Amino acid sequence: MRLALGVRYNGQAYQGWQSQLSRQTVQDKLEAALSRFAARPVTTLCAGRTDAGVHGLMQVAHFDTDIERTPFSWVRGTNRYLPADIAIQWAHPVPDAFHCRASAVSRRYRYELSQSPVRPSLDAGRVGWSMRRLDGHAMRAAALLLLGEHDFTSFRASACQAKSPVKTLRRIAITQHDISPDGERCRWYFDFEADAFLHHMIRNLMGCLVRVGQGDAPPEWMAEVLAARSRKVAAPTFSADGLYFVGPLYDAAWGLPLEATWQSEAAPYDGSA
Amino acid sequence: MRLALGVRYNGQAYQGWQSQLSRQTVQDKLEAALSRFAARPVTTLCAGRTDAGVHGLMQVAHFDTDIERTPFSWVRGTNRYLPADIAIQWAHPVPDAFHCRASAVSRRYRYELSQSPVRPSLDAGRVGWSMRRLDGHAMRAAALLLLGEHDFTSFRASACQAKSPVKTLRRIAITQHDISPDGERCRWYFDFEADAFLHHMIRNLMGCLVRVGQGDAPPEWMAEVLAARSRKVAAPTFSADGLYFVGPLYDAAWGLPLEATWQSEAAPYDGSA
Repeated sequence: MRLALGVRYNGQAYQGWQSQLSRQTVQDKLEAALSRFAARPVTTLCAGRTDAGVHGLMQVAHFDTDIERTPFSWVRGTNRYLPADIAIQWAHPVPDAFHCRASAVSRRYRYELSQSPVRPSLDAGRVGWSMRRLDGHAMRAAALLLLGEHDFTSFRASACQAKSPVKTLRRIAITQHDISPDGERCRWYFDFEADAFLHHMIRNLMGCLVRVGQGDAPPEWMAEVLAARSRKVAAPTFSADGLYFVGPLYDAAWGLPLEATWQSEAAPYDGSA
Repeated sequence: MRLALGVRYNGQAYQGWQSQLSRQTVQDKLEAALSRFAARPVTTLCAGRTDAGVHGLMQVAHFDTDIERTPFSWVRGTNRYLPADIAIQWAHPVPDAFHCRASAVSRRYRYELSQSPVRPSLDAGRVGWSMRRLDGHAMRAAALLLLGEHDFTSFRASACQAKSPVKTLRRIAITQHDISPDGERCRWYFDFEADAFLHHMIRNLMGCLVRVGQGDAPPEWMAEVLAARSRKVAAPTFSADGLYFVGPLYDAAWGLPLEATWQSEAAPYDGSA
């Protein structure tokens, strides 16, 4: 039987998702807990391998097992053996044809950024930071230039293992929240959706968007960076602190929870916000 | 010269605000950083000594110094020496008659609680948890019975050093956020305002409100607990995880930032929400 899992975690204490010899990864903790609950070795695959320090709102993983338990007993039983900063949110039986990575039709990330003269404290490790004011109009104009199918080589880490640098960026929504009366302090949310992302792609996009937002480059510069197909022209990779893997989306036919289900009525190309 | 400071911190790593021999307190970290910036010993007082694990959104402290610096250079200079989870938000010169504790006319706390069949993970240590659904109407009815001036002995820790157990609870607002489609998962915010609070008062109030919310006691039980003036009748002290000291409020005459200024037009007795 194949089971899909929704997994939430705070990435601050981990060297990313993927298993390493150190065992200080989310996958290592998850597999250790599943294996303990199942009383036999369990190995998992995931929809999006997050980097060190990146958080997961609804990572999706799957594994095969011959153990018969109700889905919620997998959730409750495994969570007992997981560290406090990782918890399975749901478990769902899926057909063997389901593959958490290959079946995902879309992936979403959010970057949360604090604009303030003062660095983060209460949320240290959970938000990025800009000491300077950001111009939302300029950032949105730059973001529009990124939407659609493009070769994103300029935003790709050298270690990236993707077969192709061509991805379809379906949505970038940039919204401002909790604005102080003088407009100096606020929160920015950058919501990204694409068929798939390259290694460090969001953090590299964030570096460029913030450069535009701070007024150090005009929005049109983003088109130049994209066209250059060279990592050298883009801004430095932005901090992992504020990056959240919101989660993958799947066709409704798989019967997964609503938050993991692709809503075809959602406008796929939304550069408006 | 007397300076008032607004201080934000994540309490997870600390044994509360007040200085201890261990030096693992927010006050110890703050005074070490101020002393380093000032190049001479600095001691502080605060508006509300938070317990171990309790967070501060805008704690207010004050200290006296003969060093002449601009307020923002105190902020920036001291933050350089503070741990990543503590940061001064503002510094403001005040008359010698100002005392961060004695001058406060009101204090606000927020308790943030996750209602979910699954324990917190991404926010572990930053939210309380109820596995069971909470009834907002019942909790609000119970909260109304607490408003006004009362002897809060039933909600007072044995270690409490307050001179009197009589406090005026001005506001309890209970609001529900981010509700899942089936209503099973949500966030609850419990906002409290009083002239002052007793030791563990909010955590003891929370224990009773959650008991009512879970249906294990009727709203009227809260009046019985209050009238008993005995810690024995109340529910157990609730977890510190979701407790935030929002901050004290001062008369506008002190000229402190807006978020620390008492707005007399705000309805003082608001049990409506």
